[in-house]
Amino acid sequence: MTPRASGVLAPVVTPFRPDLSPDAGRFARHCRWLLDSGVGLAVFGTNSEANSLGVDERIDLLEALVAAGVDPGRMMPGTGTCALADTVKLTAHAVKAGCAGVLMLPPFYYKGVTDEGLFRSYAEVIERVGDARLRVYLYHIPPVSQVPLSLALIGRLLKAYPQAIAGVKDSSGDWNNTKAMIDAFAAQGFDVFAGSETFLLANLRHGGKGCISATANVNPAAIHALYAHWRDADADARQQRLDAVRATFQKRPMIAAMKAAIAHWSGDAAWKTVRPPLVDLADSESAALVGELQAIGFAMPGLAAAP
Amino acid sequence: MTPRASGVLAPVVTPFRPDLSPDAGRFARHCRWLLDSGVGLAVFGTNSEANSLGVDERIDLLEALVAAGVDPGRMMPGTGTCALADTVKLTAHAVKAGCAGVLMLPPFYYKGVTDEGLFRSYAEVIERVGDARLRVYLYHIPPVSQVPLSLALIGRLLKAYPQAIAGVKDSSGDWNNTKAMIDAFAAQGFDVFAGSETFLLANLRHGGKGCISATANVNPAAIHALYAHWRDADADARQQRLDAVRATFQKRPMIAAMKAAIAHWSGDAAWKTVRPPLVDLADSESAALVGELQAIGFAMPGLAAAP
Repeated sequence: MTPRASGVLAPVVTPFRPDLSPDAGRFARHCRWLLDSGVGLAVFGTNSEANSLGVDERIDLLEALVAAGVDPGRMMPGTGTCALADTVKLTAHAVKAGCAGVLMLPPFYYKGVTDEGLFRSYAEVIERVGDARLRVYLYHIPPVSQVPLSLALIGRLLKAYPQAIAGVKDSSGDWNNTKAMIDAFAAQGFDVFAGSETFLLANLRHGGKGCISATANVNPAAIHALYAHWRDADADARQQRLDAVRATFQKRPMIAAMKAAIAHWSGDAAWKTVRPPLVDLADSESAALVGELQAIGFAMPGLAAAP
Repeated sequence: MTPRASGVLAPVVTPFRPDLSPDAGRFARHCRWLLDSGVGLAVFGTNSEANSLGVDERIDLLEALVAAGVDPGRMMPGTGTCALADTVKLTAHAVKAGCAGVLMLPPFYYKGVTDEGLFRSYAEVIERVGDARLRVYLYHIPPVSQVPLSLALIGRLLKAYPQAIAGVKDSSGDWNNTKAMIDAFAAQGFDVFAGSETFLLANLRHGGKGCISATANVNPAAIHALYAHWRDADADARQQRLDAVRATFQKRPMIAAMKAAIAHWSGDAAWKTVRPPLVDLADSESAALVGELQAIGFAMPGLAAAP
């Protein structure tokens, strides 16, 4: 039995070669650094540019990670796409690979859809995958998906599939919503992850399970340390330091900024590459980011250098 | 050389079996009825629920249509997905199949992306497909995609790829935007299609090429007749009759309503099925729709009965 996910997970940034193909070697190295820093692997998330990856690319990359010895029991791959068939394919593959769970966007092309339609979407995937090992973490990220998941929908899914529906990542950016999810469902074994470390301490104090946060790609050890020591007297001070780092990244396009930081601290310029429709940071902007981060004492200790 | 698309095209509704798999036989029959009614086939559009179809499902369905004898020279399949690799795969397949063009959404998961990022997205697809036969119709549908295509972006694409960039479907619902596209680019051979027949007459009078409209699935002959006779004295009266039919559908969820109407007039209840996240119309709502349509003299002459 794969242990249940908890603590801090990173939506692992996906490195690309100059021809924009995914770079499995660099990907596995970054995953190992994250695991060594104490955080789990929410590969193929929003910040992984996973929605810019083809179905076959995601399958090949997950297989490459497992072949490279990265533990699937620490992975929660994103598997939700617009299309039922593709979501089923990716989800079944992740379960068979031994992943701890999957993070599942609702189908997000059609807007203004009903709870009934979203219920049927998740239900079809769960029924078609038909595997008792499946653990679905619902992915609520209305600023990007534009398709919110209501408390009523979550309640209905949890009632129908109490084994399969394992939790949620709440990327609404609204702590009151995260709190409402915990209040409504945590007692039933529904694990609520905050969508960023901004709400990590609040989430843990209120009964949540941790966070799945972009910045865990670049600041993993410090975010994990707050998780590990959230009952300590210095927890609020830790939270404030995390917030300062995050704010520095968040002033820029987040994914490009994280890749620029990894490129800088690893000395591996190949990390800068993003896939369209994203655009990499200009050199001047990367330098400004690094300067601001150094000014607040940020570094990425132990990050693997360029191969 | 495949003739350039013009006139009226339908984003062909996709029939599903009870197990939600696409039904190629019914799909080909509906395509033939549309062609017989004078309209072209924008298969795999928004109203085709194409974004709920997997990559392989789209490829298999297009091949099934061609195998069934439906002319690919009358087809403009939708091929734009979130993922570069999938968009390239679908587009290359459509070109090789001999389609007249492709209707291409921008990558639509990430929001607030730059024109530079969108330019790179389209440019990568065009370069990777690398086929002189490729004709791209840009798909501007901000109410659904939430990723608009600016005039500046279109101008830049047209300058870089004057052969490949063939036109646009403007589903903004804003006639001033459609007009601005014609004014800026029609003289360069850029074909502007209105996103619905609501603006068909205005579009033709202003120098546009036609429309690609959901309702062309259910009212094809009448919409085509306005295209064929738009210079006649009764054109405004024709437009008003089209508008009345459209308004009756548009009061309901459009895709489910069109499928309910096809089910009614063909006597083939199988047509009612939609894929999640959409939900089929309740029987009472279908009956109300049919009643309102009959009251304004609507019918679907020549529609194939249930097999």
